[in-house]
Amino acid sequence: MIININLNKRIDDSYNIYIGNLDRLTFDMKVAIVTNKTIAALHLEKLRSLIVAPEIGEAIIEDGEQHKNLATIGAILDRLCDLRLDRKSLLIAFGGGVIGDMTGFCAAIYQRGVSFIQIPTTLLAMVDASAGGKTGVNNDYGKNLIGAFNQPKSVHIDTKWLTSLPRREFNSGAAEIVKMAATLDREFFERLESANLSDERELIAAIAQSIHLKADIVMRDEKESGARAALNYGHTFGHAIEKESGYGAYLHGECVAMGMIMANRLAEALELIREKEAQRIERALERFGLSARYKTPNPEAFYDLLFLDKKTRDNKITFALPRSIGGYSLVSDIPKELVISAIAKGGE
Amino acid sequence: MIININLNKRIDDSYNIYIGNLDRLTFDMKVAIVTNKTIAALHLEKLRSLIVAPEIGEAIIEDGEQHKNLATIGAILDRLCDLRLDRKSLLIAFGGGVIGDMTGFCAAIYQRGVSFIQIPTTLLAMVDASAGGKTGVNNDYGKNLIGAFNQPKSVHIDTKWLTSLPRREFNSGAAEIVKMAATLDREFFERLESANLSDERELIAAIAQSIHLKADIVMRDEKESGARAALNYGHTFGHAIEKESGYGAYLHGECVAMGMIMANRLAEALELIREKEAQRIERALERFGLSARYKTPNPEAFYDLLFLDKKTRDNKITFALPRSIGGYSLVSDIPKELVISAIAKGGE
Repeated sequence: MIININLNKRIDDSYNIYIGNLDRLTFDMKVAIVTNKTIAALHLEKLRSLIVAPEIGEAIIEDGEQHKNLATIGAILDRLCDLRLDRKSLLIAFGGGVIGDMTGFCAAIYQRGVSFIQIPTTLLAMVDASAGGKTGVNNDYGKNLIGAFNQPKSVHIDTKWLTSLPRREFNSGAAEIVKMAATLDREFFERLESANLSDERELIAAIAQSIHLKADIVMRDEKESGARAALNYGHTFGHAIEKESGYGAYLHGECVAMGMIMANRLAEALELIREKEAQRIERALERFGLSARYKTPNPEAFYDLLFLDKKTRDNKITFALPRSIGGYSLVSDIPKELVISAIAKGGE
Repeated sequence: MIININLNKRIDDSYNIYIGNLDRLTFDMKVAIVTNKTIAALHLEKLRSLIVAPEIGEAIIEDGEQHKNLATIGAILDRLCDLRLDRKSLLIAFGGGVIGDMTGFCAAIYQRGVSFIQIPTTLLAMVDASAGGKTGVNNDYGKNLIGAFNQPKSVHIDTKWLTSLPRREFNSGAAEIVKMAATLDREFFERLESANLSDERELIAAIAQSIHLKADIVMRDEKESGARAALNYGHTFGHAIEKESGYGAYLHGECVAMGMIMANRLAEALELIREKEAQRIERALERFGLSARYKTPNPEAFYDLLFLDKKTRDNKITFALPRSIGGYSLVSDIPKELVISAIAKGGE
């Protein structure tokens, strides 16, 4: 299956997402595989056997979101210099979202720009990072505050890499699938309520549908001025949860799921969604083990963290909230008390 | 005087270079001035008095090319977070080329992109960095190996900032003026042979003509696939000189001037220029105190350094050489012995 992503109707930005068995990749330039130690131990030999290129180098970094920073970017760039990659060379992001974000960022700034492709190895990266073009790293002030918009030349999705993925990581990816279905596609949501994602065919169908939904949004709005904000459902709260709990305590998708629950409480207060429908969303999350609530020690301080998100403009937050199931609303200027109440209720 | 730079005929990339007395800048967004300690001590108070904006913050870094690295970028970005700059904020690069390159790079990657303007305070930055869109930093492997193409919203050139510029720095900027005249504009070169750049009117005319020449090249070739390579006269050798001598031993323009002399020897060997005309170029450099030669301890090792330049593709170097005075040739596949001989002769 091939999904074509064509941003701004410019041909040179167009790229394909291939879904299916990856059996050979042939390049006529030097390539460097960027991956982490965990993935390298499990799958690097296999990937190398599938690649045909004049030279294949590797940049292998530590595993984990805590390494997603400018220092690691510097280390990867040094390694690319070591490998004597030039402007025509190609980077291959082989890993989860952290590897994808960092490789895409390195590709944006190595010698002012080289090409890259993505071979995601986690469910989250397959459904989420694949069709976005957002790349970057964290700093002490928050997530992804440093980065660039940069589109890959192609994305290659193959579920064979998922066989070694821990259950918790798999579920973290499922959170994004539920998120997109709940705000963008009621029919898909209803299928998900009874889907068995251990079945390869059902899994591939769910990944493909999520990519279609996200691609549709991204193509309409590459630079996030409007519709793309819909994808932030659960994320505005989720980023604050990640920040307050310290990166690494929860997985990204777990934070998003807990953030969706806070967003649901807010949507209920604003009468955008009935309690019963909100509960359906939460039951869909529970099917993937995502039943945890996040209880902040201090809702006021948590509220302030929301303003550190880079989507905050002029100290104003726009929340992406579910409107019934299958729809969304973007709401600004919500009174502080309502938000704080949702933060508290979302933790109960 | 206003020079409009319009890349790729796209309106949203268009920006103006203003040359003349800067007496007021008014913005309706938060701004942050990025500068170094030297410039801050001399001129920051003056600049602040000229700016009208809702909030004016500052990021002040150490002075010198040795600080042009990813660690300093991280420190500037932290400071921008401290100042709570958002995506609508504006950075002001206030300083020489190092400040311009780093501020433009920070603007490219802070929250995936904010706007910036340039207020250059050195002659080099005025004639060279202003109309390029190249931004970035060095690493242990070479100059500007990390970076992005990023155009400022506007550039404001005022020679009042030059009053405090050390003579050596001024002359370093003059090297770029001579470089452009020698390869692009014979009439301008002949005017320069007798010009008095201590005279403000003559200086402004020379800056403006250099910007016109560079802008013309850059507009034809933003991403350096062809004509822009003409600007590399003296730079391929110059970068190797900077690398071998250790950043900071010589100023950039001094390295370019010494690199131009090596390039002249190569151009003579290839019969692109007669000895007499090459000497005219060298006398024009001498008028700005640029008479030094660079003698490498090891021409073979120096030759290898040329291949670390990021313009090297597939281990191939294209040299920009003067063709008589006022013209240039781009030459590849020059036998190694010829290049090594030019490296040695250029040091005599």
